[in-house]
Amino acid sequence: NRFHTLYASVANELVEVETRFRLELDSQHEMLRPLLLHGTQLGGKRLRPALLLLTARMCGAVNPDHIVLGAVIEMVHTATLVHDDVLDDAESRRHSPTINHRYNNHTSILLGDYLFAQSFRLAATLSSNRGCQVIGEAARKVCEGELRQTMLRGDVTLDEPTYFEILNDKTAELCRIACLLGAEYAGARPQHVEAIVQFGQALGMAFQVADDYLDLWGDDATIGKTLGTDLLQGKMTLPIIHLLNQSSTSQRAKVIAILEGPAEFRLQRLRPLLAASNSKQYTYDVATRFQSDAINCLDAFASSSAKDALLGLAELAVSRQI
Amino acid sequence: NRFHTLYASVANELVEVETRFRLELDSQHEMLRPLLLHGTQLGGKRLRPALLLLTARMCGAVNPDHIVLGAVIEMVHTATLVHDDVLDDAESRRHSPTINHRYNNHTSILLGDYLFAQSFRLAATLSSNRGCQVIGEAARKVCEGELRQTMLRGDVTLDEPTYFEILNDKTAELCRIACLLGAEYAGARPQHVEAIVQFGQALGMAFQVADDYLDLWGDDATIGKTLGTDLLQGKMTLPIIHLLNQSSTSQRAKVIAILEGPAEFRLQRLRPLLAASNSKQYTYDVATRFQSDAINCLDAFASSSAKDALLGLAELAVSRQI
Repeated sequence: NRFHTLYASVANELVEVETRFRLELDSQHEMLRPLLLHGTQLGGKRLRPALLLLTARMCGAVNPDHIVLGAVIEMVHTATLVHDDVLDDAESRRHSPTINHRYNNHTSILLGDYLFAQSFRLAATLSSNRGCQVIGEAARKVCEGELRQTMLRGDVTLDEPTYFEILNDKTAELCRIACLLGAEYAGARPQHVEAIVQFGQALGMAFQVADDYLDLWGDDATIGKTLGTDLLQGKMTLPIIHLLNQSSTSQRAKVIAILEGPAEFRLQRLRPLLAASNSKQYTYDVATRFQSDAINCLDAFASSSAKDALLGLAELAVSRQI
Repeated sequence: NRFHTLYASVANELVEVETRFRLELDSQHEMLRPLLLHGTQLGGKRLRPALLLLTARMCGAVNPDHIVLGAVIEMVHTATLVHDDVLDDAESRRHSPTINHRYNNHTSILLGDYLFAQSFRLAATLSSNRGCQVIGEAARKVCEGELRQTMLRGDVTLDEPTYFEILNDKTAELCRIACLLGAEYAGARPQHVEAIVQFGQALGMAFQVADDYLDLWGDDATIGKTLGTDLLQGKMTLPIIHLLNQSSTSQRAKVIAILEGPAEFRLQRLRPLLAASNSKQYTYDVATRFQSDAINCLDAFASSSAKDALLGLAELAVSRQI
């Protein structure tokens, strides 16, 4: 797939991360093995370890700490996926059954906890406390973002600044620290660390806004989930927030009535209103702006195959259909 | 209450732990504050921080690291309580509404995750990696124990050794590391560390076996939950495992039929069979044996008020009704 093609310059190191990830999710208890193995297969793109390794390569060299950190960050990400699938009552993820669907919600909750715990156990094997600190703080931010999003489901008064704050915590944070740790553990200069951290954060935002876009206007055969899932779950996304913001009082009331009405009709009823608005273009423009921000951050670095790959990831963030 | 009376020699330090715990569960986001505050109030006995502080006091002196570690361990414990209440669909805990009852399951899952993440973030502020390592590994073990218990619900073939293994992971482990960290961070000698670790583990087992006992033969007005909850949830506990083990083939079939029958009749239908067996005495004896093991471990230590308090906790483990 297009992501893995971009990862070519760190392909061997990604295999090491993958091996470590699977090794750490082995258990002495036979009965837990199929479950844990299923857990390792949930993430697809391995975006965060790839970001970490490409950053390390661009800033210096990949070392054994990076392999551990790559496995740790993918474990934290997988833990959030497992719990997200419970929250969303999802049946499949990337065309595979979710843990809650194959097993049950109890098992999913505990598997997510296991992944969190194991990620910290692994982070604590690093020589310095720095990795634990960064990862602990990031995990807290991700949970805070997810908590706020959950508590604000169906809240039609959610404004853009709050929405961006939540995205920043729940999605961009892990991309940001993937870059931070990749650079720091490669001994990058402070200006370079700063630049790549900005890159990671902007990239994460671009991915998430593009996800909001794809949920309404993507190609459901390739995105691997049903269109309108966010609407079904009462998640306020950028296109909807924008539609509400630029509506007249009477149209606003109409949109709110649809959002508060039966979940299964929301997408179909909003389609004409969205089509008559500029929400589609607006959302695309916002995603593109984050993408440009990310690309500009890379000006600080000399040309290299790793830099080209990071530029390619920024391109894909918006142009992908998966 | 009787627990807090025992904690008198570390009362001030426990207040410091409590303050730190609440401080760490504050948020800049107004909307999260009531939820996080509710989270701090779920645990009741503060058994694990008390074990840690009393051990530190018995082995030497309490220092600032112990305060941090006490807050960390209580956070991990609270995270498991919050997720347990979702798994058990519990409405109240110690006469207060659970998070899943007051809010909902989504919020509970995320609050538990938040507590896990925050505990590791806090552990990473310690000067050495040791705390993170011990706590990460213990959290992993707790999750492993909980996962096995969940996957074995309703499995009438569960044997005693496996049952004890699961208890050891899911319950005794946090008591064990409370003692371990209390002693190590007080600079205790290796033999003392070893003795107190054995104490913590045996104490945790005594508490859990006593819980199994109280679930069937406790006083429901004082234990703060409905009798027979374990049976309702299909959890195999020691009295039931023993009943099955010492039954004739025909009685075994009868017990299994009850366990696999409607949940609401299990307690009432098993009562006469339990009464005709020695399961009550057997379970009590096992709890008492763990209690004695714990008490014997304290022989290694000179008399002190902290040692007396630890002896008192071992007494309470079996004699309490809460």
